[in-house]
Amino acid sequence: MRASRFFISTLKEAPSDAEIVSHKLMMRAGMIKRLGSGIYTYMPIGLRVIRKVEAIVREEMNRANAIELLMPLVQPAELWQETGRWDKMGPELMRVKDRHGREYAIQPTSEEVVTDVVRTEIKSYRQLPLNFYHIQTKFRDERRPRFGLMRGREFTMKDAYSFDRDVEGLKRSYQIMFDAYVKIFNRFGLQFRAVAADNGAIGGSGSHEFHVIADTGEDALVYCPDSDYAANMEAAEAIAPAAPRAAATQALTKASTPGTSKCEDVAALLKLSLTQTVKSIVLTVEKEEKGVVNKEVWLLLLRGDHELNEVKIAKIPGLADYRFASEAEIVEWFGTTPGYLGPVNTKKPVKLIVDRTVAVMSDFVCGANEVDFHFTGVNWVRDLPEATVLDIRNVVEGDPSPDGKGMLAIQRGIEVGHVFQLGTAYSEKMKATYLDENGKPQLIQMGCYGIGVTRIVGAAIEQNFDDKGIIWPAALAPFEVVLCPMGYDRSESVKAETEKLYEALQAAGVDVILDDRGERPGAMFADWELIGAPHRIVIGDRGLKEGKLEYQGRRDTEATAVALDEMLAFVKAKLAA
Amino acid sequence: MRASRFFISTLKEAPSDAEIVSHKLMMRAGMIKRLGSGIYTYMPIGLRVIRKVEAIVREEMNRANAIELLMPLVQPAELWQETGRWDKMGPELMRVKDRHGREYAIQPTSEEVVTDVVRTEIKSYRQLPLNFYHIQTKFRDERRPRFGLMRGREFTMKDAYSFDRDVEGLKRSYQIMFDAYVKIFNRFGLQFRAVAADNGAIGGSGSHEFHVIADTGEDALVYCPDSDYAANMEAAEAIAPAAPRAAATQALTKASTPGTSKCEDVAALLKLSLTQTVKSIVLTVEKEEKGVVNKEVWLLLLRGDHELNEVKIAKIPGLADYRFASEAEIVEWFGTTPGYLGPVNTKKPVKLIVDRTVAVMSDFVCGANEVDFHFTGVNWVRDLPEATVLDIRNVVEGDPSPDGKGMLAIQRGIEVGHVFQLGTAYSEKMKATYLDENGKPQLIQMGCYGIGVTRIVGAAIEQNFDDKGIIWPAALAPFEVVLCPMGYDRSESVKAETEKLYEALQAAGVDVILDDRGERPGAMFADWELIGAPHRIVIGDRGLKEGKLEYQGRRDTEATAVALDEMLAFVKAKLAA
Repeated sequence: MRASRFFISTLKEAPSDAEIVSHKLMMRAGMIKRLGSGIYTYMPIGLRVIRKVEAIVREEMNRANAIELLMPLVQPAELWQETGRWDKMGPELMRVKDRHGREYAIQPTSEEVVTDVVRTEIKSYRQLPLNFYHIQTKFRDERRPRFGLMRGREFTMKDAYSFDRDVEGLKRSYQIMFDAYVKIFNRFGLQFRAVAADNGAIGGSGSHEFHVIADTGEDALVYCPDSDYAANMEAAEAIAPAAPRAAATQALTKASTPGTSKCEDVAALLKLSLTQTVKSIVLTVEKEEKGVVNKEVWLLLLRGDHELNEVKIAKIPGLADYRFASEAEIVEWFGTTPGYLGPVNTKKPVKLIVDRTVAVMSDFVCGANEVDFHFTGVNWVRDLPEATVLDIRNVVEGDPSPDGKGMLAIQRGIEVGHVFQLGTAYSEKMKATYLDENGKPQLIQMGCYGIGVTRIVGAAIEQNFDDKGIIWPAALAPFEVVLCPMGYDRSESVKAETEKLYEALQAAGVDVILDDRGERPGAMFADWELIGAPHRIVIGDRGLKEGKLEYQGRRDTEATAVALDEMLAFVKAKLAA
Repeated sequence: MRASRFFISTLKEAPSDAEIVSHKLMMRAGMIKRLGSGIYTYMPIGLRVIRKVEAIVREEMNRANAIELLMPLVQPAELWQETGRWDKMGPELMRVKDRHGREYAIQPTSEEVVTDVVRTEIKSYRQLPLNFYHIQTKFRDERRPRFGLMRGREFTMKDAYSFDRDVEGLKRSYQIMFDAYVKIFNRFGLQFRAVAADNGAIGGSGSHEFHVIADTGEDALVYCPDSDYAANMEAAEAIAPAAPRAAATQALTKASTPGTSKCEDVAALLKLSLTQTVKSIVLTVEKEEKGVVNKEVWLLLLRGDHELNEVKIAKIPGLADYRFASEAEIVEWFGTTPGYLGPVNTKKPVKLIVDRTVAVMSDFVCGANEVDFHFTGVNWVRDLPEATVLDIRNVVEGDPSPDGKGMLAIQRGIEVGHVFQLGTAYSEKMKATYLDENGKPQLIQMGCYGIGVTRIVGAAIEQNFDDKGIIWPAALAPFEVVLCPMGYDRSESVKAETEKLYEALQAAGVDVILDDRGERPGAMFADWELIGAPHRIVIGDRGLKEGKLEYQGRRDTEATAVALDEMLAFVKAKLAA
């Protein structure tokens, strides 16, 4: 590609609405252009990166025997109503009416359509297993679109769907996709981590997320450096402490803690460790019976330095539809304002859930159900009855790994892929069956497998940048190599050697751009550092006199002189590295 | 590709809603699957064809220095309001509201967005010319979607937009795109014709349509076999007859023509040629002035055997907003019912427009403005004053070519491409300017260039099929070559030779599918004739004994025996042909 025939448009400053590095750099490098909230035009240089992501995804999906098709963007409401997601998805699902008033969804994903395809196409067990995928534009009407391509409304996703005869088949298909994802992310040249995930609203059993590691990531990834244990924060188990509960050594005492409602402040006031404090969280569940709404109040106990894991509590039987209690409810049930309540002597009976860590504490501190007072020296059995013990907290660094092989560490990640075992969640609702060997209809076992194509572009930048701009891994770079001639239009020899090298690189299958725009060296170098070409070759009269060119990798701090006739081999070696 | 790892699903019968050949065959070959009215899933075999179309389009667009980007599907209403098309486009424009009530269009085309990109990106004349294109999903909420991919609602289009400093630049860019289109359609291997077209609602000056020739085409293409004149019916000029008007030989006579309101019947009754009759067409134009609606009545005269060209009459000054008159209006103005009216002695004054052919007629027949009566022997000047003479009819076969080089012929076509000179129609409304050499802002000259990617798939089939199925040109075939082994799983030698040939063909870059599904020969052959693989190779024990394989081209009536070791070269020669 010649830069003069391409469209390069860089900016010195990012627009003010760009909050994160990848958004800023993509705007500055001219990769994307904002059309509306969460809606971007992919400019030529951005589209090249997206296409490279797509090509790698497509190759590995095909290699894994997934079959590409293309499902429509505009999908009839009836299908979404069959699975109940028309109502369940809320305003995130973009809905549209045609001229006849018929309703459609602009697809955020395609479980319904692919299941509809399969239920009409699949008759016999002989046609299974099967895996269909497409790489298609999606739309999700996010409440707060932001971060450029990281949380846009219109985006590109690869979604694959596997169809199997039984759970064993599903597990095989799932593993094949998992392995393909590992290959895909390795080929991207990105640091990534696959973590066990919670299944969330989609239903079914078993799922993993693929995250690009980045300090700026929104998600906390939990892993064990000494084993292959890895899970996202929602799914990471905080196992019960190994040490048994110590015997009580203190008497139950009511301590005056005026104006001290937070565990941190109580610990400071009483000169105790925060790990001796217990915080009380009140949840409300409303149950309608025969037209009457009854309120259930649940009290959850966590150690003062721990955080509640909302996904874990939502799985507790009876808490699926919980909400945090209002202050009025707390006053009604505990006779005190938040900050001073606790499990000892509650005004009304509550359902008590105790975190595993709290269950083995002794001599601990908690609210006394009286404003400005806390109890110290609280002990189980003696001061309050033992209750249901569950894992309801987020793990923290240093927690023991659930596989018993070491301690947990935490790093930040950006979710860019997700593999799910759906089981029969969709095939049951949509009656997608096949006939088994005995001619009996059986529900099809499904899996689904997504990769956020455009999101990967943002995530790759969040992982790879410096103060000059983007640092692309070669596999995703808009161009692998940039040729920067000094005085292309002034020096015959510079032009001739540049053209020769350009042709040789093209013939070798290298994705090269020749910057023949006639920019000044400073501006030209700044552009390519911003855009992030991994390999730069400078052709100038001074070097040519000695038969040399200058090579500099994007992460190199200095240029290397390379003999003219060795440059092709030199670059090819760099690209193969 | 191995058929066992691909998805092939053919049907014996097309569904009843498939009216035309391409729709029927695409459904039967399992290329598309209906999701809703005018909305189709592109099944794996259909998607392969679409991708081949896209790849050829992309290559030639890039070669012509057009630069690919990707504009969003969901486009803010504000941009469409700037050009007035938000109101003008009516229900065909699919509109959608987001969760905040903001309005968007699902793009049917992208003039607005690309002009918005360019008006912010282009500052200087140095950045021009420029040509941006994308290959993107479009949505048009057609009133009556039908014919499968031929008139769908969701479809894929390549749309390119050129930007130039002046009209000369626009003409150059237009010619470059025209030439690229010729290359593209030649590469498709389709018979096509580029015809001059009317510019229609899009505005600007100068446009051509590209049509795939097919007897089933909706459009009539006019061309001169002896020259390069070609236009669509709307734009084809019917030139004035060379022969002057003959002198009157008959007296004006009122003839009784009871119950005879059509020219054909009048001619038969009076034993005259249809070419001696003149038909009268009444149009109404309503003009509002100071709150009062005034009606203008226009009378158009055509020779009895000719047809009105509505595009031509809409261009007559004063007729832009015409409609056909109602029967009541005709009675009011002519004192008679339709079928008996004429230009002689009208009850009220009318604006008269005379087709060029009618202007040179003498002794002709027309309605007498009295029920059941016609005039015969009507002559200009003597019986009625001469009036405005214009070309208002469709040309017919045998009309002289406007370039004076022969006679016109007509064939049917399917419009699959369109190139337009938009001029400043959009840049003016959206204030898209550049600074010229003197630092003065100038409006950008625009062109737009569309190719209906999915429509081409349908059109290719309309042009190439027989009673067995589709006959793909090699460039568009889902697979170029199919290997049909007889007893792949039973015969060691069949399997071995099939695999050897499969590998050799793949290594030679041939797009080959090996049918290893284990179907019976009859079913297997029927599938591939339906799907339309251009080249078929049968590998069987009987042939192998003599060292031979069977080759059959899709249009061949018989198979050819080819020596085993010559087959690769044989097929490569066929593909190169």
